[in-house]
Amino acid sequence: MPIATIEWQNRKVKIIDQTKLPLRLVHIYCEDLRTLREAIFSLKVRGAPALGIAGAFGVVLGTQNSSATDFPSFRRELEEAIDYLSSSRPTAVDLFWALKRMRNCAEKNKHQEIPQIKKALQEEALQIMEEDKTRSRQMAKKGASLLKNGDRILTHCNAGALVTADYGTALGVIYRAKEEGKKVTVWADETRPLLQGARLTTWELLQAGVEVTLICDNMAGDLMQRGKVDKVLVGADRVAGNGDVANKIGTYTLAVLAKENEIPFYVVCPISSIDLEIPSGKMIPIEQRNSQEITEFGRKRVAPRGVKVYNPAFDITPARYVTGIITEKGILRPPYKETLKELGP
Amino acid sequence: MPIATIEWQNRKVKIIDQTKLPLRLVHIYCEDLRTLREAIFSLKVRGAPALGIAGAFGVVLGTQNSSATDFPSFRRELEEAIDYLSSSRPTAVDLFWALKRMRNCAEKNKHQEIPQIKKALQEEALQIMEEDKTRSRQMAKKGASLLKNGDRILTHCNAGALVTADYGTALGVIYRAKEEGKKVTVWADETRPLLQGARLTTWELLQAGVEVTLICDNMAGDLMQRGKVDKVLVGADRVAGNGDVANKIGTYTLAVLAKENEIPFYVVCPISSIDLEIPSGKMIPIEQRNSQEITEFGRKRVAPRGVKVYNPAFDITPARYVTGIITEKGILRPPYKETLKELGP
Repeated sequence: MPIATIEWQNRKVKIIDQTKLPLRLVHIYCEDLRTLREAIFSLKVRGAPALGIAGAFGVVLGTQNSSATDFPSFRRELEEAIDYLSSSRPTAVDLFWALKRMRNCAEKNKHQEIPQIKKALQEEALQIMEEDKTRSRQMAKKGASLLKNGDRILTHCNAGALVTADYGTALGVIYRAKEEGKKVTVWADETRPLLQGARLTTWELLQAGVEVTLICDNMAGDLMQRGKVDKVLVGADRVAGNGDVANKIGTYTLAVLAKENEIPFYVVCPISSIDLEIPSGKMIPIEQRNSQEITEFGRKRVAPRGVKVYNPAFDITPARYVTGIITEKGILRPPYKETLKELGP
Repeated sequence: MPIATIEWQNRKVKIIDQTKLPLRLVHIYCEDLRTLREAIFSLKVRGAPALGIAGAFGVVLGTQNSSATDFPSFRRELEEAIDYLSSSRPTAVDLFWALKRMRNCAEKNKHQEIPQIKKALQEEALQIMEEDKTRSRQMAKKGASLLKNGDRILTHCNAGALVTADYGTALGVIYRAKEEGKKVTVWADETRPLLQGARLTTWELLQAGVEVTLICDNMAGDLMQRGKVDKVLVGADRVAGNGDVANKIGTYTLAVLAKENEIPFYVVCPISSIDLEIPSGKMIPIEQRNSQEITEFGRKRVAPRGVKVYNPAFDITPARYVTGIITEKGILRPPYKETLKELGP
């Protein structure tokens, strides 16, 4: 730790190509908007907080070579870049949050010369990345206060250093607990169809020296039933105003199993993942992905041709299953409608 | 339908190699005990009822070339074959049930000449297979009475024609409902790690003209929450005397999700899968399988080297989650301790 998931180097966005992990650690350098958007769309960079940072730098890439000489022309190019990035992935709200910040930054500087606006945008993106590092540490510290020595944590997908510029969300809590001298072990759901748990979470945790055991998603219930899970920690792609949580498909199932087995279920996410404008999880748009993610494996077909497929990338966990939401400002408890509102905008 | 999953031809056991489906329909011919046991161990033939039939024929293969001239010598060879088959897979009780029937058959005929005993054993195995066809149809008929036109059924693993000599268990109910003119559609869990749902259930249902949609195991909860599942139907590897059900890993999770979403959860299995000698599911032995089933895919590594793995093949669904157990003698309802006992031995 930390893993340099996303960096800004020589006017390029340098990212780890997460589709190549764990077999190879490969970096790619995005020097234009199109390359960056493709990296988002194909999950080379992924996870709600990292999508915010990537989106902000995407705006920089999309406008830094603008030849506009007046603000209205520059704004048109800016809005085009924002639209293009907005259409990459619909669920994680951090992307839209960051794009909005970039727009506001440009508007605030609209009376400046274009080169100054470009400079301000780059500084804003760097600022978003710096803030992410700080809040990542803050969330980790708040969350670690909940963990006990010996805790066996179950997690889903990857909510670690690979989704932030630093420590991660759910895994950040575990890294921090380890630094505090607590022995914590992890059960990692492999997370079908794209195996972010098998490929990324295990890789991160092994690198950090945390004991981790890989399971298939359908084995988590068995472990809970046998009393082998003390807490569930997951990230979030978007939290609605009532506390409903959109996160990687399978999260709802874990929450139901945790409730049935009386195991605390925590969501770890920065405030930028909270969308107070959406009153309920039912209104969060859910990305549907390609059927080949399920019918093929490494380009080899596993299911018969012609079979229909349902492949949502996320599900909604109703607030009533969520024991707490760990943010950089503190641990929120039910009733979320009230505690989320108190966070303020 | 029907698919000839297992047959007896020219003193050989002819089976479909289920590890090659759905890409290729390949048959293998087992002419000795060792080949048959390997087919069981490596899941070329699988599913509780089919394991009973395979086990019975395994005893035939293991004794048909015996040169014993007296019963004690023949019995030693018979018991060796039974022991060897018993050690192949521990959870499905049908295997042990069939082996016991074969032993009883030999003992009943112990005063006959050895050639007559061999003949009796072959007839017993054929009888077990014939009975399987009959009970498969009976279960299907009983179960179909529960299905309504338009029902959307969720199933896990493969409990179809590929696990019996005929119609199947859970899928048999669906085939029968279709024959009765009911339109029924199916959600098939892919069933990690070995993808019996993606490979086998979809293949069978498409062949039978049943509308099927493939999902990852972690998507079943999302569908239930959205009101898109009317009933859950699964098979069983062993039912304990109190109604606890051992079935493919992930079944317990579906049962909890079904309860939470008020969806009926049915188990379809022949009486040979019910083990009255075991009072509780906690005492059913659970097979642990190789870690490479999870860390590799088609021999390609997906998880980092050195990661620990937990890979149980089955889990236990406590009886309180089971709405009904559909057998060839009728549909059992709670309290199972009583209704199972009434079935008699």
